[in-house]
Amino acid sequence: MHGPLTVKNLLRYAKSPSATVKEVQGWIKSVRILKKMAFIDLSDGTSSQTLKIVVPRQDGTILKQLRTGQSLKIAEAIWKPTPTREQPFELEAKADDLKILGSVPENYPLQKKYHTLAFLRTLPTLKHRSNYLGALLRFRSIVENSLSEFFTSRDFTKTNPPILTAADCEGAGELFSVNAQSSKGNSDVNSYFGKSTYLTVSGQLHLEVLALALGRCWSLIPCFRAEESDTNRHLSEFWMLEAEISFVDDVRVLTSLVEDGIKHVVQSCLAQKTSIFPTIVPQEGAESPEMAIKLWEDIVNKSWPVLTYTEAISLLEKQHDSIQKFTFPPQWGQALQSEHEKWLASYFNAPVFVIDYPRDCKAFYMKQNSDGKTVACFDLVVPKMGEIVGGSIREDNYELLVQEMERRNMNMPSMEWYLSLRQNGSAPHGGFGLGLERLVAWLFGAQNVRDGVPFYRSANGSIEL
Amino acid sequence: MHGPLTVKNLLRYAKSPSATVKEVQGWIKSVRILKKMAFIDLSDGTSSQTLKIVVPRQDGTILKQLRTGQSLKIAEAIWKPTPTREQPFELEAKADDLKILGSVPENYPLQKKYHTLAFLRTLPTLKHRSNYLGALLRFRSIVENSLSEFFTSRDFTKTNPPILTAADCEGAGELFSVNAQSSKGNSDVNSYFGKSTYLTVSGQLHLEVLALALGRCWSLIPCFRAEESDTNRHLSEFWMLEAEISFVDDVRVLTSLVEDGIKHVVQSCLAQKTSIFPTIVPQEGAESPEMAIKLWEDIVNKSWPVLTYTEAISLLEKQHDSIQKFTFPPQWGQALQSEHEKWLASYFNAPVFVIDYPRDCKAFYMKQNSDGKTVACFDLVVPKMGEIVGGSIREDNYELLVQEMERRNMNMPSMEWYLSLRQNGSAPHGGFGLGLERLVAWLFGAQNVRDGVPFYRSANGSIEL
Repeated sequence: MHGPLTVKNLLRYAKSPSATVKEVQGWIKSVRILKKMAFIDLSDGTSSQTLKIVVPRQDGTILKQLRTGQSLKIAEAIWKPTPTREQPFELEAKADDLKILGSVPENYPLQKKYHTLAFLRTLPTLKHRSNYLGALLRFRSIVENSLSEFFTSRDFTKTNPPILTAADCEGAGELFSVNAQSSKGNSDVNSYFGKSTYLTVSGQLHLEVLALALGRCWSLIPCFRAEESDTNRHLSEFWMLEAEISFVDDVRVLTSLVEDGIKHVVQSCLAQKTSIFPTIVPQEGAESPEMAIKLWEDIVNKSWPVLTYTEAISLLEKQHDSIQKFTFPPQWGQALQSEHEKWLASYFNAPVFVIDYPRDCKAFYMKQNSDGKTVACFDLVVPKMGEIVGGSIREDNYELLVQEMERRNMNMPSMEWYLSLRQNGSAPHGGFGLGLERLVAWLFGAQNVRDGVPFYRSANGSIEL
Repeated sequence: MHGPLTVKNLLRYAKSPSATVKEVQGWIKSVRILKKMAFIDLSDGTSSQTLKIVVPRQDGTILKQLRTGQSLKIAEAIWKPTPTREQPFELEAKADDLKILGSVPENYPLQKKYHTLAFLRTLPTLKHRSNYLGALLRFRSIVENSLSEFFTSRDFTKTNPPILTAADCEGAGELFSVNAQSSKGNSDVNSYFGKSTYLTVSGQLHLEVLALALGRCWSLIPCFRAEESDTNRHLSEFWMLEAEISFVDDVRVLTSLVEDGIKHVVQSCLAQKTSIFPTIVPQEGAESPEMAIKLWEDIVNKSWPVLTYTEAISLLEKQHDSIQKFTFPPQWGQALQSEHEKWLASYFNAPVFVIDYPRDCKAFYMKQNSDGKTVACFDLVVPKMGEIVGGSIREDNYELLVQEMERRNMNMPSMEWYLSLRQNGSAPHGGFGLGLERLVAWLFGAQNVRDGVPFYRSANGSIEL
């Protein structure tokens, strides 16, 4: 027993229709009632395109009750080719064959007119029905599927590092702690697992365990940071794609992998570009479809520059000294600020890999370069969004890793398990983490990562549902 | 710049080799040194199959230092067809071209000999290197990819309900609560999001929001229950596949969807069955590959029975009264126990859908049937594992839903957002949740869901890493 025909399916088979279509269902996007005809745009959420329904007027029918937002069932309709119009067909139905399944109140907020993103965000149960945010969610799904294809084609195993963990991957602080809510009453702190338990900030350390067993693995898991920054690039709960690959000791293998992966995604997007975007996009906070598609073409056609941190600082200093001051003066040894990253990407008008950062700017597990000052790592910075991927070769030598952890005064006993990997069949390996909401928002031309996830959690944000 | 050749890739192109293969890397699974030759089985984790390496003996080389578990790099090897053996080729290398990348201590626990699953579970950083658990993780990846293909082919959007939530989906209790660990010191209970925040037990309620926007959506997210049961079917952190579909009011559309989806997965498994299983499986707690493949063939060849709860109770009562007593006597109105579910599945020797349970056995959101006693829901129960999927048509009528929630004394204000969906373009819809670890373990013939996830979290279990 099959489910109903979807609008996406009806549009896909537009060229070989049967004369009669049964049980078409969706939500009314707009309705216009003229003298002889009523015109309905119907969407069932499976496509950014709507079905055009034409209904000859009949008095005493439900036509006058139709309103935007209602769900509608059309028992039967006749397929009519419309070769001169954008959609190659329309469906003609009798008014008696229409049935309103669910109505809307008079003040239903998603009327046909244009809505700002700020307004839509105030409607957490309805906003996904807007053309733009609905399209953005479908886009995210395309991106996820395409990433999955890519990693499978490269012999990576999809896997699942844990969310509940005792490890604080980067020592970054800003953790969420977890307690069991006992059925007997108050929560008993830390008693359930016998020690302090946190939500993971990154699956990397666990992925390293798995990479030394499976060779190549990737994961897509929610990560959590109790961020205090409330920006358009930060979420408290975000999805992170991480990959880890063994028998690699050159950071350029990692940058090539990232470049190939994102290009693969963008190729998939280009292949279906006409159906991805809605016809109307918000006037603020969103690029036009034309701009996004131009971005995609640039992404696949260019080879992405790779420059060292030292080269990047030198470019930034030149800019700072001669042309335009940054808020934070660039200086060797300091982290790159978001303004620096964005400037670099816009200077090259392309995604840019910055590699070999100073060791003290980066995490303890990164492999030191032979210069004694930098580590074999990279960040991918892209125009407008800044950093979207970060990765490194990992230190696989036990003594060097212990030395670096001691230098940083880290808690060694809690990291015993991680260190032990370097004593048991250790192998050169490296990997990276990619913020999925940042990738999705950047590629779609959306300027706020909050719109890249259906229900966002952020600093100063409340949890309404 | 590309990463190294994988063993999987080498095996895949076995029929058109180049004469010389460069930079083969992996871990030694076993090594035998004979008078004239040394034989090495090498795995890089990308396949259950190993590469056979033959090395002519030379004195004064590293051959005698080789041990199981070490990572090894072979600079160059010559491809030699071996048409009479299972693997159609072997690689011959000179001893001088071997380099040990990472050694192992004398007491490295994963020697060639057979290991029990109970023993492997005591090695959380090494167990995934065992033939059986490595194969099980690769299998999980195949299952995830295949599910993703299936839902895409049916026009479902992959989406992400939130993990941090204020909603307690089923009122089931056993929640984990979440607090921000402020960088200033002690955690300040509930202050970060302004209200009590929990880890989700199910994404369903949020997926309903999305199904009424996107028409069809699915998700694969970690869910959390502070279970007190410590069984081979329960985890505190588990991955749940959930799907929700609009414009469906018949539970049999849902059961068909589940049956089609799982059959699609099993077809993918059958297509690559020779490479999935390891040659040796543990003697306890695991089925043989032959038994698993027999199960797969049964799954795809049979049409799965659908019986009502009432019919199921009648069968169970007959069994209980005449042949074999259950620990819990079956009785109309009571939930089915795991022993009942397993018996039903073994009676039909197939996955069985049980539909139309009594309303008080099930959650508040399920649509009531016209008999006034039962709800339009289903559980899928399978041999040995019991329930692996549960779903229902959801009550889409506002008044009926309010009435049922009041009958259950539920906290209405906190569910206002959920109820409001029934007032704004409501449409018939339904969905289901599938426990991924249960599906993976069942299909692979593993008897404990703990082995279906790389790092398990369970009641009475500690978090070592």
